[in-house]
Amino acid sequence: MQNKYRLMSPGPTPIPPEVSAAGALPIIHHRTPEFGEVFTRVNENLKRVFLTENDIFTYAASGTGSFEGALQNLFSPGDRVLVVNNGNFGGRWVKMSRAFGLEVTELTYEWGQKADNDEVAEALAADPQIKGAICVLSETSTGTVNDIRGFAKATENVLTIVDAVSGLGACELRTDEWGVDVVVAGSQKALMTPPGLGFVSVSERAWRAHEEARLPRYYFDWTAARKAYRKDPPQTPWTPAVSVIIQLDLALQQILEEGLENVLERHVLLGRAARAGVKGMGLRLFGPDEDMNTAVTAAWVPEGIDGKQLVRMVFREHGIQVAGGQGPMEGKIFRIGHCGYFDAYDIIATVAAIELALESLGHPVELGKGVGAAQRVFSKSGVAA
Amino acid sequence: MQNKYRLMSPGPTPIPPEVSAAGALPIIHHRTPEFGEVFTRVNENLKRVFLTENDIFTYAASGTGSFEGALQNLFSPGDRVLVVNNGNFGGRWVKMSRAFGLEVTELTYEWGQKADNDEVAEALAADPQIKGAICVLSETSTGTVNDIRGFAKATENVLTIVDAVSGLGACELRTDEWGVDVVVAGSQKALMTPPGLGFVSVSERAWRAHEEARLPRYYFDWTAARKAYRKDPPQTPWTPAVSVIIQLDLALQQILEEGLENVLERHVLLGRAARAGVKGMGLRLFGPDEDMNTAVTAAWVPEGIDGKQLVRMVFREHGIQVAGGQGPMEGKIFRIGHCGYFDAYDIIATVAAIELALESLGHPVELGKGVGAAQRVFSKSGVAA
Repeated sequence: MQNKYRLMSPGPTPIPPEVSAAGALPIIHHRTPEFGEVFTRVNENLKRVFLTENDIFTYAASGTGSFEGALQNLFSPGDRVLVVNNGNFGGRWVKMSRAFGLEVTELTYEWGQKADNDEVAEALAADPQIKGAICVLSETSTGTVNDIRGFAKATENVLTIVDAVSGLGACELRTDEWGVDVVVAGSQKALMTPPGLGFVSVSERAWRAHEEARLPRYYFDWTAARKAYRKDPPQTPWTPAVSVIIQLDLALQQILEEGLENVLERHVLLGRAARAGVKGMGLRLFGPDEDMNTAVTAAWVPEGIDGKQLVRMVFREHGIQVAGGQGPMEGKIFRIGHCGYFDAYDIIATVAAIELALESLGHPVELGKGVGAAQRVFSKSGVAA
Repeated sequence: MQNKYRLMSPGPTPIPPEVSAAGALPIIHHRTPEFGEVFTRVNENLKRVFLTENDIFTYAASGTGSFEGALQNLFSPGDRVLVVNNGNFGGRWVKMSRAFGLEVTELTYEWGQKADNDEVAEALAADPQIKGAICVLSETSTGTVNDIRGFAKATENVLTIVDAVSGLGACELRTDEWGVDVVVAGSQKALMTPPGLGFVSVSERAWRAHEEARLPRYYFDWTAARKAYRKDPPQTPWTPAVSVIIQLDLALQQILEEGLENVLERHVLLGRAARAGVKGMGLRLFGPDEDMNTAVTAAWVPEGIDGKQLVRMVFREHGIQVAGGQGPMEGKIFRIGHCGYFDAYDIIATVAAIELALESLGHPVELGKGVGAAQRVFSKSGVAA
């Protein structure tokens, strides 16, 4: 039987039909009033989603590129940074910081564990030379969401830098209220837009650090970006990814029409239902069973089952693209992405497909048990019958 | 009267309807066999357009980002480079090289003048410490195309680095035959694809330089890219701009179906017709009247006319987006872009609109004279009746 393609990975994620359709519009020039109107609205609406009054810059780049830009704009060679590493992306920021000649104090946690913000505070107290602290909001590789409110408090005397690539728009992140200096994000996760755009928000304190920062930079230079953004209408210093920005404009409008708080609530339910489904079919969650894990749900592949084969079968025979484990978790866990354009029936279909795939791989599973558990989450919430 | 929107700027450029339509396809995951098939074909077809067997990497970035990557991957702080500066983009590479701590020998030419490759050879002979030489193929700011065959010969003992952002696919560039080590390009010009992708090709000699290069880098790191590209199917190290790459795939197929040599021939005619049209209406060309100027045609705004007003009027009242002058040429010249998805009637419409706009600005112009001159170019070539 033919299956529809269902993208349930933690990035890129499916995009709403209106956002898709806008991808087919003719290309317009980026220095026109027409594009200026779109770009002005995008910049305003990004602030509403980042919950900040800070400058936000949009790059033609992935989140990794924007993150590189943040390091280049904030630091000088030899500067000390603290990096929380509890997954693939935390690990990436350690490597990137070292590649740029920064002295890294690495706080390592097992994959699936949350950062301990008391330890963060202790590490900073022990080394007053540390200038900035880096933490991932939603660690896509494990599904674990770090407590960024606590992290921002623990790091209040240094630059607080947060990778919110898969988190922004799925997990609570109150940039200004919590005092996060720099937030890096990407278009292809909860912002329901194709991949290709990276974002960075820059606080006043980050601007002051920028003035001292001597790492070489050009493409991601914040001063160049600010100068272009202050034109009327605002511009980017280099050619922007016009078509993806036009798509982002529609996606942001949809998010704000649903209401950011409602969007975050929906993600709480999606995560809760995904975890209930996984547990309902008798599998063990990877990472904490917490309501804040709203972007990705990770679970251990049951003993005796090849995790790569499971993920492949769910895709090949059921059309549903979940993700396998990364790095040390390859073949051991699978991950269901639900940050962005997802609803109750995406979760239900995914849980159903995993049940069916486990059955055909010979794993004992009672069909419908995981699905029922997911349904009950939605039923209790009154969201879906 | 309502006008259609006609994008006649030198980037971004209009894209074929099939390429537009593909922008509305659902997002697929980048680590699937389906995307792998597209990406493998894109990588092969890029080599056919770059005319190289060298590695080519595709970034989520503008051409400026890819160029930054080239500097980071080739050089160490204090390294000496020669940069030809005969326009806005040559000037940008001077600034970027300095931002990365390189010692720049700048060969400056007036905007609209071509680089003198004898002077390039002399400058290199005078300073054997110079490691690399940078030149723009098609200087988008002036329409002038530099002689890269001669430049590659003059720089054969150092790394030859070419900015082909607006040139690739519009101007002759035989990467391997001419011995160009590094070619940087972008998706949004003659490659008939939305903006958002940057490219770089890397010769064996460039790889050897890369091994010694100590500038800090991560996002654009060629070693990371090569490692990911060697997987089966090939991947990018970070999330690629999936939707734009799927569009690029179709655009490259169209280019190769038309045949690269035919595409280049078409651009020769487009340039010739645009120049004939401009001269036919009594205006003076900016830059040399040469068949190699195939990507952009620039002309002086006639005395007594406000160039910004002319460009605005052609856009507002005729729907045709030509470009004004950049930097020192602001208000003094206008530019017609014709690199990419353009045909005879795009040129004819543009020339006609400029005639009409000049007339309504009170400039003496005989309607149809420029158009007739453009027509004759096509008529003589047998391309259009």
